[in-house]
Amino acid sequence: MSAQGFDSATLISAGYALTSEEIQQKGLKAPEDAAQYALRLGDDALILSQRLAWWISRAPELEEDIALGNVALDLLGHARVLLTYAGSAWGKTEDDLAYFREEEEFRCIHLVQMPNGDFGQTIARQLLFSAYAYELYSRLAAESSDETLAAIAGKVAKEVEYHLDHAEQWFLRLGIGTEEANRRLQAGLDYMWPYVEELFEDEELHDRLEGVAVRPSSLRENVMRTIEDICERSGITIPDVPQAVCGGRRGEHREYLGPTLAEMQELARKHPGVTW
Amino acid sequence: MSAQGFDSATLISAGYALTSEEIQQKGLKAPEDAAQYALRLGDDALILSQRLAWWISRAPELEEDIALGNVALDLLGHARVLLTYAGSAWGKTEDDLAYFREEEEFRCIHLVQMPNGDFGQTIARQLLFSAYAYELYSRLAAESSDETLAAIAGKVAKEVEYHLDHAEQWFLRLGIGTEEANRRLQAGLDYMWPYVEELFEDEELHDRLEGVAVRPSSLRENVMRTIEDICERSGITIPDVPQAVCGGRRGEHREYLGPTLAEMQELARKHPGVTW
Repeated sequence: MSAQGFDSATLISAGYALTSEEIQQKGLKAPEDAAQYALRLGDDALILSQRLAWWISRAPELEEDIALGNVALDLLGHARVLLTYAGSAWGKTEDDLAYFREEEEFRCIHLVQMPNGDFGQTIARQLLFSAYAYELYSRLAAESSDETLAAIAGKVAKEVEYHLDHAEQWFLRLGIGTEEANRRLQAGLDYMWPYVEELFEDEELHDRLEGVAVRPSSLRENVMRTIEDICERSGITIPDVPQAVCGGRRGEHREYLGPTLAEMQELARKHPGVTW
Repeated sequence: MSAQGFDSATLISAGYALTSEEIQQKGLKAPEDAAQYALRLGDDALILSQRLAWWISRAPELEEDIALGNVALDLLGHARVLLTYAGSAWGKTEDDLAYFREEEEFRCIHLVQMPNGDFGQTIARQLLFSAYAYELYSRLAAESSDETLAAIAGKVAKEVEYHLDHAEQWFLRLGIGTEEANRRLQAGLDYMWPYVEELFEDEELHDRLEGVAVRPSSLRENVMRTIEDICERSGITIPDVPQAVCGGRRGEHREYLGPTLAEMQELARKHPGVTW
């Protein structure tokens, strides 16, 4: 692994290029509904990756700079392959989808758009998203009749399992740590909690993808059990706060997404003539 | 490697923790001069890592987001182990040195402090630094009588060799690419060139570290040959511009370092009471 050392950034990107290329080389063309589904998962990973990358020069420890940086790069890898598969339905590349869509065309949930806040708030979001993603991709790998989605999910599941483990370790460390650390983590979870329900909202799309996609509502029980168990062992209370109205899957986003996209898309849009 | 997939951010940081811990566990205590030398190399890696991490949400391609992100995390890994060894001389940790030194206590060269500018400017800096770092760490691994420095350098050399390869690939792609890409890369190299000479400036410290450190001036010939060869094959001209007066190794920095440090150190300094 590169951050631990001794592997190549070049090889890493080549590795990923290969994965995305494989999808193209095989001439795979995602069915429209499967593409819409992959787009949702890819956008979640893409935006959360941008959020976490912010920490690389700002984490409370150099060791954590590297850990969060690797989680961010893992998620960016997930976004690449998922957006490549989604784009195959429309003759678009991962970069077309990442850099040349307007805000209302993104399909990410609100949880991943929420501000990093302090470290506790970021870790709270990591626990919620990772618990959801691990259950989702594990099920998708085992159940999806779309071979490409199942193959992608199998690899993603292995990484998000570590992301969940990473978040759990921090919950235990902060929750059972100093009073101040516990207070900050609890405040972070309280802040992120209103955006949990959107993770489990079914759409008509899922009705049409029976056997291909995992129905979001079917994830709730196991995901909540995981979150509750980790919170209990960390001395953190499950917040009693109302759920927010979210429309991420319909392209209705919070005010935080726009600036993130502007930043992400600036270079690609500014010099379309330049063949980087 | 994490970004290519399937390894753990947690394991990565654990892996790194182990490396830094090994230095502590072995009760290694760097001699004062060797510590000052390690501090210089560690600071170069630390600051360049922060610079490159900025690109993670902004590179021209998602694939390149991951590649530059991995280079940044590699460098952060180098900073961790080098600062851990340096700190062993003074009873300080890597985090003490990264987060609780004032600007004038940093010993990084000016090249790594320079602004990212556009992608071409960043890649130009990558070529200059990577060519220097590859020669430096290869020699240090082979020649240093300080076993810890030699061991660290052996691992670092393998990574910076890939960073050099990555920069070379971009020089060829941009230099022989569109006229605009070539123009931007050339402008980037022109901008960074005045800070090359500082890479090769000897200090009294190096006189006292005969056989332990590599004398900077002894790196010039091979490093310049590497840079000239890659530029020639890329259709890029070696700039004919005067060298800037630099005092990075004496703690005299450009205006760009302060804001970077403020950003990097804010969280650790803001909540010293919080046991993250």
